[in-house]
Order: sequence, then structure tokens, then C-alpha cells
Amino acid sequence: MSGGGFRFEITGTAGAARAGVFTTPHGTVDTPAFMAVGTLATVKSLDPRDLREVGAQMILANTYHLHLRPGEDVIRELGGLHRFMGWDGPILTDSGGFQVFSLETLRRVSEDGVEFRSHIDGSLRLFTPESVIDVERALGADVIMPLDHVIPGQADEALARDASERSLRWLERARRAFERADDGAPDRAGRGPQTLFPILQGGIHASLRCEAARAIVAMGDWDGYAIGGLSVGEAKPDMYAMLDVANEALPSTRPRYLMGVGFPEDLVEGVRRGVDLFDCVAPTRMGRTGTAFTSTGRVNVRNASLKLDPRPLDESCDCSTCKRFSRAYIRHLFVASESLGLRLLSLHNVHFMISLMRDARSAIASGGFDAWSRDWLQRYHQGPDS
Amino acid sequence: MSGGGFRFEITGTAGAARAGVFTTPHGTVDTPAFMAVGTLATVKSLDPRDLREVGAQMILANTYHLHLRPGEDVIRELGGLHRFMGWDGPILTDSGGFQVFSLETLRRVSEDGVEFRSHIDGSLRLFTPESVIDVERALGADVIMPLDHVIPGQADEALARDASERSLRWLERARRAFERADDGAPDRAGRGPQTLFPILQGGIHASLRCEAARAIVAMGDWDGYAIGGLSVGEAKPDMYAMLDVANEALPSTRPRYLMGVGFPEDLVEGVRRGVDLFDCVAPTRMGRTGTAFTSTGRVNVRNASLKLDPRPLDESCDCSTCKRFSRAYIRHLFVASESLGLRLLSLHNVHFMISLMRDARSAIASGGFDAWSRDWLQRYHQGPDS
Repeated sequence: MSGGGFRFEITGTAGAARAGVFTTPHGTVDTPAFMAVGTLATVKSLDPRDLREVGAQMILANTYHLHLRPGEDVIRELGGLHRFMGWDGPILTDSGGFQVFSLETLRRVSEDGVEFRSHIDGSLRLFTPESVIDVERALGADVIMPLDHVIPGQADEALARDASERSLRWLERARRAFERADDGAPDRAGRGPQTLFPILQGGIHASLRCEAARAIVAMGDWDGYAIGGLSVGEAKPDMYAMLDVANEALPSTRPRYLMGVGFPEDLVEGVRRGVDLFDCVAPTRMGRTGTAFTSTGRVNVRNASLKLDPRPLDESCDCSTCKRFSRAYIRHLFVASESLGLRLLSLHNVHFMISLMRDARSAIASGGFDAWSRDWLQRYHQGPDS
Repeated sequence: MSGGGFRFEITGTAGAARAGVFTTPHGTVDTPAFMAVGTLATVKSLDPRDLREVGAQMILANTYHLHLRPGEDVIRELGGLHRFMGWDGPILTDSGGFQVFSLETLRRVSEDGVEFRSHIDGSLRLFTPESVIDVERALGADVIMPLDHVIPGQADEALARDASERSLRWLERARRAFERADDGAPDRAGRGPQTLFPILQGGIHASLRCEAARAIVAMGDWDGYAIGGLSVGEAKPDMYAMLDVANEALPSTRPRYLMGVGFPEDLVEGVRRGVDLFDCVAPTRMGRTGTAFTSTGRVNVRNASLKLDPRPLDESCDCSTCKRFSRAYIRHLFVASESLGLRLLSLHNVHFMISLMRDARSAIASGGFDAWSRDWLQRYHQGPDS
């Protein structure tokens, strides 16, 4: 479902886990991969050079937020998202569905779309499957997502069926809008084609997930598949069960993207179940609040025990934060509310997630993935040494 | 007044202006030079690699703030300020005098020193000339400052004389404490010797400035001289007149450091009057509030006129912000309160100040300084083109 230029090559497998190369008009992505989240066309406190340094190949930006600020017209006028934010690698934009359904203010779902109030100025807005495609066309990301109806993780079968079936009808409308949109229009010159990934919904109900997968596959050939509606309040075993269902139900020849997930342990569990792409705000959000991911679990950098600690955050880490700064210095920056602290910690955390996926890839390639993932999870759950 | 390792070589002059090389135990500084301010052992939002990239050679850190957080004992324990913050170039620490006298809470000056309440926790503290030297010994900067009595810029002659004479008595006590401190103690291993610069006070009263200069010179040979109590509320012509007085009254063979000054135009005016070193929080503070220094004046990056502006902040700038990002993107970051905005702008502004001093140095070396400085001031005062 694209203007061409997208390919996925699987280079190794280990059970359900796969290593591969996802090719896009803005370059290739070695999978499994973690995409850092650049909500407002910036991965908070980091710039594209920082992202390259930590090994990022593909990033995510947020349609809802960019529609409100600065607006898709501004970004189109300035040459699209890649040029606007100075990132020349692949970008994925989500559809805004998750954000709209997370708003605390009024929203109203109809068959037409979802009406909501902007969290910036309270203005009334409408997202339809078609209008979201228009916004994402203007932004110009490589991979774009259709509007979907997102529900809480513990929703019962009736609610989950209603939302999943609506999401499928919206997907069909998004697909038609996507195919109508003129990919060769002058204002897209040099920005390359885009592709639309369908989103598999169905809550924590295996039968709904299977039905939705069949409907999506029947709709046509897609360059990749997204798995939505997970990590939204359901229990972890339920999430893992749904990943097993998706792994069986979705074509294995295309990349699978697990939306909005997650923490380091979720990534390892996801890879074990055939997921290729992940995104989550956790590394930058935790970075801002003072939590470091390390190979032996999380470290709260404000902890008084770090006051005189000359060691790096993670002694097995080779990021530029760990190579240069002590826990004591980073603690000092957080205690003194210095913005360099959150930047250094975000850099470390994003590097941690990307390195984790690189290690998983190596383990799949070398045939040792099963042992590697078991060891990694055990060590991580044992907790930090400080 | 040092443990050795400090030299100043003048390589060119143009009227009162001088180009030189200031050698310290942590490297050389080409003068005239602007020192970025790392109040809490970080130049806000920038790290040492960023500082090297923009051409910084020497930076400043703040004794008052570091005494309160994290405390000089922590920094000494972690190997001193250079190692703590990962900056291996020269550092200067101020004495805390300016900060204490700027506090809005209670402070009490006596001959012994100045009593004040911490702005962090309200605890009662005492700075004496001797205790400040102890703090600065523990921090381990290359150049350190004695406690001085700072008064408002418009203070009358009686108040200015009282403060200047007290500062001279405190200087003598600081000098003795500095000479007593064991420079070869084990906890200073590898951190190199320090030098103490005297501070010339006297408000806006030429006769007081001359008297103070004579007293300072009579006290012994110093590796450099600081000019204090300017840019604290007096009129610009008064500041320039005091710089002319200092230029005549201080030995020309040592570097002169104008404390806490200033804006770009102040630096050019200062160089014209024989100043070699400057520091100011303006480039990072203005960077955080959305003001860019440019070769044609200041630009407010929140301005709506920048919304679709594809140009860099300053078309004649080669900093990494201007090489990569548009005014429209930086405006978007500020409007959306994204911390990357203040970082990119701080980087640009610090680069601007450092480049300005590099240009002044080149103009002195080539014999064209007088014309260069007049042209620069005229263009700058004409204001921005947007």
C-alpha cells in the first residue's frame, strides 16, 4: 500500500524472532529496532546528530501534536518533516488516534470520525480517516498510520469488537484517501513516496485479533503491519498472548510494528514474539524524571547513595554520557534542576534501547538468541547493584 | 600570586586593545576571550564537547552556587571541578561576592566577612576572605577570585570608598590564606597550581579606582587583574570611563578580566579599552528566553514573522545551529516549550560571543581593529533586518 521504495528482507530467525532490513526512501533500518519518539519534531532535548550518535535509524513523530503546533501547513511549506527537523533518515507518523482518545477533555466518536478539543487552546477539531491522511501527506513521513479507535486495555469483548470493526472501516477509508492523494504533487518533490501501515486492533480478545488480521490481509498487500491497543492498561500476560496471536495471524514477510511499547523488558519479550519495530516515550520521559535504564535494572539518579559515586550510570555502556560523566555529576545536575541532566540521561536511555535491539539482532544472527534473551531478562529483573 | 604555570604574552596591539595568549596549567587562552558561565559546573544546557565545538577555551564557575550545591567537599572528592564536569581546559571561579550581595534575603557585612542566608534552604552562612579561598582551593579552578564587597553601580563616593577599602583589606587576607594553603597537598595531585587575581573596585569614582590600583600593585606581583563592580546599574559612559582609568592604572603586561560583562557591544567597547577577558550569563540567559544575538542585532525567535522563515538565525554564522536549522524550526521549538530550542539558541549565542572575540583578535593582528570595531558597532546598533 505504497508509492514504492519499501522492502523488507529477513536475514535471520530464532523461533518467532527475526532479524531483518527494512528499506525506505530515506534509508534502511536494521530490525528489530527501537524508534525514539519525536513528538513535536524533536526527540526531547536531542537533535538529529545526537540521534545518529546513539545509533538511531528511524524515528517517530506525532500527527496530533504537529497538527496543533506548528500545523502541517507550516511543515509542508518548509519542505516536510525531514527537512524541517533536520533528520534525513526514515520517519513514521502515528495517526493521532491514541492521543485523541487519551485526552481528558471532551471527545465524541461517530462513524465519521472523532471530534475533540485541542489541549492547547480548547478549539473544537475533527479528525476523520481522510483528514488524518491529508495531515500525514503534508508532514511527509515515510510510514504513516490510519486513524483508529483506541479503547482501554481491559475493555470487554463488545466494546473491543465495536472499536476494532470501526477501525477497520476507517482503515478502508484511509486507504482510499491515501490512494487518491497525489503522490507526485510538486510540494512533495524530493520527499519520496510514503506507505500506509494498517493497525491491528481487537483488545485482549484473541478471536477479535484474528478476525481483524484476516480483514486487513483481505484488503490488499501492505508494506508492514502495526499492532495497536496494547500497553494501554491490560496485564502483561494478556499483551504477550496478543503478540503470539498477531505473530500467527499476520504475514511473516513484512515488518510488524508494536505501537507505543515499551520498556526494555517489553522489547525483549516482543522480539521473542516476532515484533520488528517498537516506539515508546519511556526512555526520554524517564530521562527527564531522573531514571536511568541500565543492564542491571533501573537507577534513580537522584538517590543520595550516588552523591559521591564516581562510576558511570552503567559500567557496560559506551554512550557519550557514560564515557564522560559520573553518577555523582548527573545526580548533582538533577538535584540542581540543570537541564543538561535530563539531556545526558535521555541520551543514555535512548542509546540503551537502541543498543538492546542491536544486541538482540546479533544474538538472532549468531543463533544464540534464546539463551541471550533469557539471560538478559533474568539479569534485568534482578535489579540494580546500587 | 600563583604556584607557577601562568604566563601572558601580548602578540599585537591597536591603541589600548591587545591580542595575547594567556597560558594556564590547563592550556592556553587566546585573548581577547569570552568565558561562558558554568554557574553550577555546567554552562546551562551545554556540555564540554559543545563548548569545544563553539571554540570555548576557558570557562567560569560560581563559588557561591557550588558551595551550596553540591558543596566543595563533593567536588574535591571527585577530583576537582575539571574532572567533575568533564572540562579539561582552564576554569576561573568567582568569589561569590557578587551573588551574596545580590541576595534579596538578609545579609550582614562586617570586617570579618559577610553573613547571608542560603537561597536554597535559608541556612545561615558566613563567607570570609579565608573561607572563600578554602572553597576555591577545593574546587580547584586555575584562576580564583578573592571575596570582595560589591555595591550598586550608582553608589556615592563615601559608600564606594568604604567598600573598596574593605575589599583591599579582604584581598590582603585572601592573599595570605592563598599562600598558606598547601598547593602540593595529596588531594590536589594532578590538578595543577592556581593563581589569585585581585579585584579592582571603586565604583564610578576615578580617584578611588586609581587609589585601589596603586594599593593592589603595591601588594605584589599578580598573574592578572580583575575589574569588578561594573555593569551593576551605572550608566554605560561611566563604565567606559572606568575602563579607561583601569587601562591606565593597571600593569599592561598582565591580562585584565572585566567581571560579569557583558553584551556583544560591551565586549567590543571593552576590547577597545584594553580588556582581555570577559564573562557573562547573557548568551545562555538570552538563549533560554528566546533572544538570538546576530551580526545585525538581536532577534526574538518567538516573533510571528519567523513562522515560515527558512533562513538560519544569522546568515553569516557557521555554528551548528545555523548550519542545520531554520528560524521557523527554532521558533516552533520555543512556542512548543521544547528544551531543544533553548539548547540550540544557547549554543548559537555562546558561539556568537566567542567568534566576536576571535574576530577582534584577528583585526588587532592585521592592524585593522579600529575600523573593524567602528563598523561592527555601527552595523550592530542598526538592528536586525527582520
